[in-house]
Amino acid sequence: MTRRILLINGPNLNLLGRREPHIYGPATLADVEALARDQASSLGVELQTFQSNHEGAIVDRIQEAAGWGPRTRSDAAVDHHGAAPLTKPSAIVINPGALTHTSVAIRDALLAVDIPFVEVHVSNVHAREPFRKQSYLSDKAEAIVCGMGVYGYTAAIEFAARYLKTVEPE
Amino acid sequence: MTRRILLINGPNLNLLGRREPHIYGPATLADVEALARDQASSLGVELQTFQSNHEGAIVDRIQEAAGWGPRTRSDAAVDHHGAAPLTKPSAIVINPGALTHTSVAIRDALLAVDIPFVEVHVSNVHAREPFRKQSYLSDKAEAIVCGMGVYGYTAAIEFAARYLKTVEPE
Amino acid sequence: MTRRILLINGPNLNLLGRREPHIYGPATLADVEALARDQASSLGVELQTFQSNHEGAIVDRIQEAAGWGPRTRSDAAVDHHGAAPLTKPSAIVINPGALTHTSVAIRDALLAVDIPFVEVHVSNVHAREPFRKQSYLSDKAEAIVCGMGVYGYTAAIEFAARYLKTVEPE
Amino acid sequence: MTRRILLINGPNLNLLGRREPHIYGPATLADVEALARDQASSLGVELQTFQSNHEGAIVDRIQEAAGWGPRTRSDAAVDHHGAAPLTKPSAIVINPGALTHTSVAIRDALLAVDIPFVEVHVSNVHAREPFRKQSYLSDKAEAIVCGMGVYGYTAAIEFAARYLKTVEPE
Amino acid sequence: MTRRILLINGPNLNLLGRREPHIYGPATLADVEALARDQASSLGVELQTFQSNHEGAIVDRIQEAAGWGPRTRSDAAVDHHGAAPLTKPSAIVINPGALTHTSVAIRDALLAVDIPFVEVHVSNVHAREPFRKQSYLSDKAEAIVCGMGVYGYTAAIEFAARYLKTVEPE
Amino acid sequence: MTRRILLINGPNLNLLGRREPHIYGPATLADVEALARDQASSLGVELQTFQSNHEGAIVDRIQEAAGWGPRTRSDAAVDHHGAAPLTKPSAIVINPGALTHTSVAIRDALLAVDIPFVEVHVSNVHAREPFRKQSYLSDKAEAIVCGMGVYGYTAAIEFAARYLKTVEPE
Amino acid sequence: MTRRILLINGPNLNLLGRREPHIYGPATLADVEALARDQASSLGVELQTFQSNHEGAIVDRIQEAAGWGPRTRSDAAVDHHGAAPLTKPSAIVINPGALTHTSVAIRDALLAVDIPFVEVHVSNVHAREPFRKQSYLSDKAEAIVCGMGVYGYTAAIEFAARYLKTVEPE
Amino acid sequence: MTRRILLINGPNLNLLGRREPHIYGPATLADVEALARDQASSLGVELQTFQSNHEGAIVDRIQEAAGWGPRTRSDAAVDHHGAAPLTKPSAIVINPGALTHTSVAIRDALLAVDIPFVEVHVSNVHAREPFRKQSYLSDKAEAIVCGMGVYGYTAAIEFAARYLKTVEPE
Amino acid sequence: MTRRILLINGPNLNLLGRREPHIYGPATLADVEALARDQASSLGVELQTFQSNHEGAIVDRIQEAAGWGPRTRSDAAVDHHGAAPLTKPSAIVINPGALTHTSVAIRDALLAVDIPFVEVHVSNVHAREPFRKQSYLSDKAEAIVCGMGVYGYTAAIEFAARYLKTVEPE
Amino acid sequence: MTRRILLINGPNLNLLGRREPHIYGPATLADVEALARDQASSLGVELQTFQSNHEGAIVDRIQEAAGWGPRTRSDAAVDHHGAAPLTKPSAIVINPGALTHTSVAIRDALLAVDIPFVEVHVSNVHAREPFRKQSYLSDKAEAIVCGMGVYGYTAAIEFAARYLKTVEPE
Amino acid sequence: MTRRILLINGPNLNLLGRREPHIYGPATLADVEALARDQASSLGVELQTFQSNHEGAIVDRIQEAAGWGPRTRSDAAVDHHGAAPLTKPSAIVINPGALTHTSVAIRDALLAVDIPFVEVHVSNVHAREPFRKQSYLSDKAEAIVCGMGVYGYTAAIEFAARYLKTVEPE
Amino acid sequence: MTRRILLINGPNLNLLGRREPHIYGPATLADVEALARDQASSLGVELQTFQSNHEGAIVDRIQEAAGWGPRTRSDAAVDHHGAAPLTKPSAIVINPGALTHTSVAIRDALLAVDIPFVEVHVSNVHAREPFRKQSYLSDKAEAIVCGMGVYGYTAAIEFAARYLKTVEPE
Repeated sequence: MTRRILLINGPNLNLLGRREPHIYGPATLADVEALARDQASSLGVELQTFQSNHEGAIVDRIQEAAGWGPRTRSDAAVDHHGAAPLTKPSAIVINPGALTHTSVAIRDALLAVDIPFVEVHVSNVHAREPFRKQSYLSDKAEAIVCGMGVYGYTAAIEFAARYLKTVEPE
Repeated sequence: MTRRILLINGPNLNLLGRREPHIYGPATLADVEALARDQASSLGVELQTFQSNHEGAIVDRIQEAAGWGPRTRSDAAVDHHGAAPLTKPSAIVINPGALTHTSVAIRDALLAVDIPFVEVHVSNVHAREPFRKQSYLSDKAEAIVCGMGVYGYTAAIEFAARYLKTVEPE
Repeated sequence: MTRRILLINGPNLNLLGRREPHIYGPATLADVEALARDQASSLGVELQTFQSNHEGAIVDRIQEAAGWGPRTRSDAAVDHHGAAPLTKPSAIVINPGALTHTSVAIRDALLAVDIPFVEVHVSNVHAREPFRKQSYLSDKAEAIVCGMGVYGYTAAIEFAARYLKTVEPE
Repeated sequence: MTRRILLINGPNLNLLGRREPHIYGPATLADVEALARDQASSLGVELQTFQSNHEGAIVDRIQEAAGWGPRTRSDAAVDHHGAAPLTKPSAIVINPGALTHTSVAIRDALLAVDIPFVEVHVSNVHAREPFRKQSYLSDKAEAIVCGMGVYGYTAAIEFAARYLKTVEPE
Repeated sequence: MTRRILLINGPNLNLLGRREPHIYGPATLADVEALARDQASSLGVELQTFQSNHEGAIVDRIQEAAGWGPRTRSDAAVDHHGAAPLTKPSAIVINPGALTHTSVAIRDALLAVDIPFVEVHVSNVHAREPFRKQSYLSDKAEAIVCGMGVYGYTAAIEFAARYLKTVEPE
Repeated sequence: MTRRILLINGPNLNLLGRREPHIYGPATLADVEALARDQASSLGVELQTFQSNHEGAIVDRIQEAAGWGPRTRSDAAVDHHGAAPLTKPSAIVINPGALTHTSVAIRDALLAVDIPFVEVHVSNVHAREPFRKQSYLSDKAEAIVCGMGVYGYTAAIEFAARYLKTVEPE
Repeated sequence: MTRRILLINGPNLNLLGRREPHIYGPATLADVEALARDQASSLGVELQTFQSNHEGAIVDRIQEAAGWGPRTRSDAAVDHHGAAPLTKPSAIVINPGALTHTSVAIRDALLAVDIPFVEVHVSNVHAREPFRKQSYLSDKAEAIVCGMGVYGYTAAIEFAARYLKTVEPE
Repeated sequence: MTRRILLINGPNLNLLGRREPHIYGPATLADVEALARDQASSLGVELQTFQSNHEGAIVDRIQEAAGWGPRTRSDAAVDHHGAAPLTKPSAIVINPGALTHTSVAIRDALLAVDIPFVEVHVSNVHAREPFRKQSYLSDKAEAIVCGMGVYGYTAAIEFAARYLKTVEPE
Repeated sequence: MTRRILLINGPNLNLLGRREPHIYGPATLADVEALARDQASSLGVELQTFQSNHEGAIVDRIQEAAGWGPRTRSDAAVDHHGAAPLTKPSAIVINPGALTHTSVAIRDALLAVDIPFVEVHVSNVHAREPFRKQSYLSDKAEAIVCGMGVYGYTAAIEFAARYLKTVEPE
Repeated sequence: MTRRILLINGPNLNLLGRREPHIYGPATLADVEALARDQASSLGVELQTFQSNHEGAIVDRIQEAAGWGPRTRSDAAVDHHGAAPLTKPSAIVINPGALTHTSVAIRDALLAVDIPFVEVHVSNVHAREPFRKQSYLSDKAEAIVCGMGVYGYTAAIEFAARYLKTVEPE
Repeated sequence: MTRRILLINGPNLNLLGRREPHIYGPATLADVEALARDQASSLGVELQTFQSNHEGAIVDRIQEAAGWGPRTRSDAAVDHHGAAPLTKPSAIVINPGALTHTSVAIRDALLAVDIPFVEVHVSNVHAREPFRKQSYLSDKAEAIVCGMGVYGYTAAIEFAARYLKTVEPE
Repeated sequence: MTRRILLINGPNLNLLGRREPHIYGPATLADVEALARDQASSLGVELQTFQSNHEGAIVDRIQEAAGWGPRTRSDAAVDHHGAAPLTKPSAIVINPGALTHTSVAIRDALLAVDIPFVEVHVSNVHAREPFRKQSYLSDKAEAIVCGMGVYGYTAAIEFAARYLKTVEPE
């Protein structure tokens, strides 16, 4: 059975690479996702991706990951992954962006589908405003990476793949 | 004039009955809503239902309950209740799920439409994480029920029907 | 074996129905208890009742519920339930009144006798002073009801009866 | 109609005059009560007195002040005021002692009987441990006196008598 | 080059003028927007308007203000501003409604597009519940106006126009 | 009857225009007051002005606004408004400067004279030290403006004039 | 040697009797002071009075009470007590008004002159805003009275006279 | 003169040995008291014992320890120690149970009678709910023991006997 | 150009040397200022001195230090420094006394005039009441000295003179 | 197999008996250790002892107790217990002194080696500075003793011996 | 010039692999360091390693990394890196263990030597005790990794190598 | 008898003069100590110096100052002061560096040896991170100096010498 990782990016992460490229590098979210897909592929894992600025759409998407269709399907979500039936991922790598600090609904969705997840932040949230210290996900995450720029996604996927091999060896 | 109760369920409550049925029982949200509709009917009350994982869609729906169409109508909301003109409910029974702890917008919508409401939680939120102690709705609710499982909806509807008879006797 | 529910009311709840009857309704505590006894009876459950303004007397009564006579028996407690040997209830419905916010002793007694309990408040404690937000019981209760007036007792007993059928089917 | 003031003293105030008489003066609680009775008499007011180390007994007594007999009458309360029917006082002067900081039940009883009250403390509670800063009564009291020794009772009764003349002139 | 101001209104502000018109005046949001457009026009500024009850739609709209199309375009956003290519505004006037207190995502979007903004509240948020004291925008806003009713929008636009003339004189 | 607005500036606001004119502009407090007087005049309102670095002098001045001479008249106050009898203003526009965060006395004076007031801050206090978040006036102000530079005074006076027309139409 | 009591009133207390006389009674501060002087006289004590809206003037006055002329003598202080040499009072009765909650300087002055003092508040500060709970004087006062209206001054002077007889009998 | 130690146990400690004997051991409170009496005897000390679920009864008992009879004697207290005149103990060993965290009255009683005391907890209160960290007694106790099971009583009595020999050698 | 240091003392520091001379030494403020003037002179610095119990007067004086005359000049300030034109000091040494903990206005004045300052406290504020831990000046001061008695002034002036030589060498 | 107890004392406890012998008694740490060794011996237990002012050395020693040599062996540790191979103790009695309140490393070491431990404090830490209320060990200790002087060690060893017999009977 | 990375491990991390190998895996710290050295080598970076249970020794080591010998050289430090002159590393990877939460000294040392560092935690500190949420390093770290087990070191070294190539390309 | 002052510097202060010499000046710790020794000498006082990055070593050194040898002598301490018997200093001047905020052990050592001490910080700790506001020494220090650079040591020694002459005149 193929292992799958679902990569979710929250609000404003669609702007990666468009803003301050001299700092964050020229890689757009599309580049990051392509790179991640290649990496996953080389690790024998299939990668699914999703980005939204809408908390509700992310909750919908996480539920669909478990094969549970939400009752009120937002078009945004539908557009993104098309009509093909979803295959349940073995792990989730999520950069919830600003929703890290405010969304209990995403926490609840992740706990409901019971899929292990890794929390990624491109910047070092501890070096920013005090309210960024609070995460509604960290205490339930398998692991957390922050401040590593887009390499953080690479590390998270690598870890997820290794983790999956440990907990469910082929 | 027929009395109406609007039953709103927030994020992740569409998963009722699908997850851990040995614990929460096999009743899905559809079952719960059907049961509630029957109960309401036997109390001489009409029941409307709505569920969404999107805070904005719930705000839209509450506004529509007052006959005030939102300007930016989300498709999700439209899909759910169809084209028929909405009839203003006399009371709302709401289980806001995770939005209980984070949504001031739902509080504001409920206060704006000025419809009495009952807050329901399937599990005992006081036995869980400390942040679940804070509710943006409780101090404005008529009543709060938590930890009674799906029976909580039954009690809330029963109470709402009784309450309506007291404040606006036929 | 007959199932039994013990209904406990704390300080000042003996004043139910005597004060502001236009608001709280004309039902006195005696009326409430009679009603509850009938309801219990129709559910095939026996109801025991107790009210006291004394924290210690309530602790005594809870211990006796487990068949453990306290060493210093307060007369109040004695007067109330008479000489007949106590039969251990299967569940407790308790409105601790003001002691909700101040009594660790009642919490400890409930945990010691290990009988599931439901917490009831006639008014909505969340709409009152901030110190009423804290309850020493809620995180250990099966369920909590507040703001439903005297109907709260009805819902609690209904729930308790259903709960008992689930956890210990006849 | 004669005006009546009920003087209530809480835990450990029965020790007045027995302990450290060189500091607090030699007046016992009996002396204080006798003095207060004379003062009240000269102001044309009748004085009733009560002291208990039991929170519940004080709640019982306050309820009885409103002519509402508690259901579980503690012997202590009974012994103290005898069998004669209680006459509802027009005002209460209360030194709740340590219960000031811990009893929501006494607050609730005072609010339930709806009799104006004055809070008295013999010592200056603000010059002692930080937890003595919190009072469950102060925000509902008409007035508060502390640090005036036993003269505090005199001032409270004088104020109560004046207050009664203002709000309900003969 | 024409200067543009984008006026954003958050949840429940679509109800302006429909509710309690004797208090808030009869002006609906459409009236307010029309008035603002005229005012802007007379100041030589073009005004764009947007309202949504959805946090994500507001984030989408702010990103589009910078010419950066979100990847998951909500229909609500699309419907509102049509197909015409967006022109980047020079300033934003925003009344985030309830999202003021809960949305880090809107803060992040505003910081990402790097457009100066003014925060407006129709009512005086400081005279309401304590949680309305916290704003996730205020420390990054150029200016804040609250309690001035719909005139607050007028003042904000006037200020924004003056501000733009100072920082980027024609 | 002529409407009057009293413009009060607190500590260090006499330095406006003298310090960092490239940032705050070259307008001194005298310029601001002259401008405000003209604006008021064009709105058919009379403007009175006062500035002091002394909390007590500001309290004195507010009391005098109600026609109530303070008993200890500070010379500063006397010098400023001369011997002519004061005419009670219909509204106050106040920039309390640093006293915003520390003066309960100014709050009490404003509440005592019962004149509606608008709170103005030239800079954005929310973008500065945390202690500037607390204002002893905001919850009692009609409206608050901050961060609009000296234009804030203009907006406040415009609002006050409009407000007065609404609450006491000619 | 004649005993003397200094009665100090802080900001806004000069408005006593002018505002809401139906509530606070028609007695002005002048009336209160005259009454207090008579009462003191009948107790064999001389009464000095002072009122100011200026924290600094109150500090000056307290220092002068100890015969220590401040270096920067405010005219307000000078005007009030004239040229006659001050006689050190044996006790101070002080109603600091709003400065209760903000002035460490008055606390320091009272501790420096080492004269026992009684703190008086006309209204019940515990029934008002939370910040009125904090007093910079209470932990150093001999006694505190609040909520007794102008009778509070009478009680304070009576207590002070009794206190002085105890600690320094003639 | 014989030294005496008074052993007081608070709410729910009468259940020792009846509940979870495989954990707490089979020793009942009666066993513990008998053991303690023997131990005391072998140390040349007389032991008195008392247990109650009533805060007020414990306060009564502590006062009686000083030879000061309470005015409202609860029957519970009377029943327990009989008619024999009480002999003042030299030290108190107290396990206040849940009252540790809520009773200022017991603290006050212990300070009033001025008898040194040792605080005992059978379980480790620091390993339980956070509110058990607060004790109203600990800062006034000579010593504190917790988590030693019933051996804690043995250690406390041993310490008390040693302590008494040091401070008042025979 | 001569360097100047302005030495400011706040409330109650005019009492130096008059109170508890066996502890603080017999040096009055006049002595301290004379000594400081000599010390300054020997360091080639001119010393100006000011003391006031009035926050406003200190703010006035700091503004005058920058050559900016306040608009409402308090007589106290005028009396002290006479008619001679003020020369701007290069540094300020300030012991704000009790205003350390309460005055934002003095902080603002010091920041406005942009003159480096040293904060001095004669006693060790950290060994006193907790509220003395907070200083509105410390985070902006060059240096802070406390607990060194009047020698603290000497150290502060020495440091200020050295500091001035470093930042603006002759 | 012989049971072993390791007795660890933290910073400044090497001063026992040298300082204020009239208070703490003349027993030095050497005396205490000798006494403890005898006591242990009579209980059939072997006692090992260690004292250090260095947090790191204590962590080293605890690790060695588990037979796990630290990689960076401090000379202090080496000197103390010599070259003989360490035998793993069955229990630890530890008085961490000041490190109680600051050392997470010692907590972690104790948890890592998984040896039950008893926390001892010679003085009553609850009667001292507030920061001594926090212990990084208490919630993981079997038991805690404080305020019993050097007898506290005796009680702790007695308890440990009894405890070991219960959990691992010979 | 060869790039160097210094890998520092704090207290108790020398136990890696010895404890709960079924959970943490069988890799000892020696294994981890060897692996890291190989990884570094393949990235063209030289790796230095250090572990200590002593805060001071870690501070010493960090200072030596900058070529600044501490004055009091602990033997532990000396033993570890021998006599060879230290070469300053370009980056530090540090797992401070328990010192994360308590050591300001390590923070200061890292800031003093001004070498960029990555913070690593083997377990997810956010899923453990609340006090582990605070880190004295995180706001100054380039990046933070936690919960990834020993793979966290691999990710950190990979990131550090990439980071160095960016900031100082060869 | 010669007076002696012990100068202790904590972690990272051995780096004085090596880092950012353009800011802190070129003086190394050795220079500072030499200067201090000369100054002390000219004041007729002998100066001892010590620096360590190890909390434990500083505790050891403070104990040795009282002539009390620690049991586990760290080599660092031994190396520094040699074999000569220590002479007890009359005062300590200590810059604890980062340990100011974290070490209770140093506080305890200073209190145990009962030698008056002065706390010095080279930089202004109040202008840095909030956690630097807390000092475990300040409330027990005679005096505190911060922000004066290395001149702070000079002031502290000068003060200590003066202080010693006052408390123990030759």
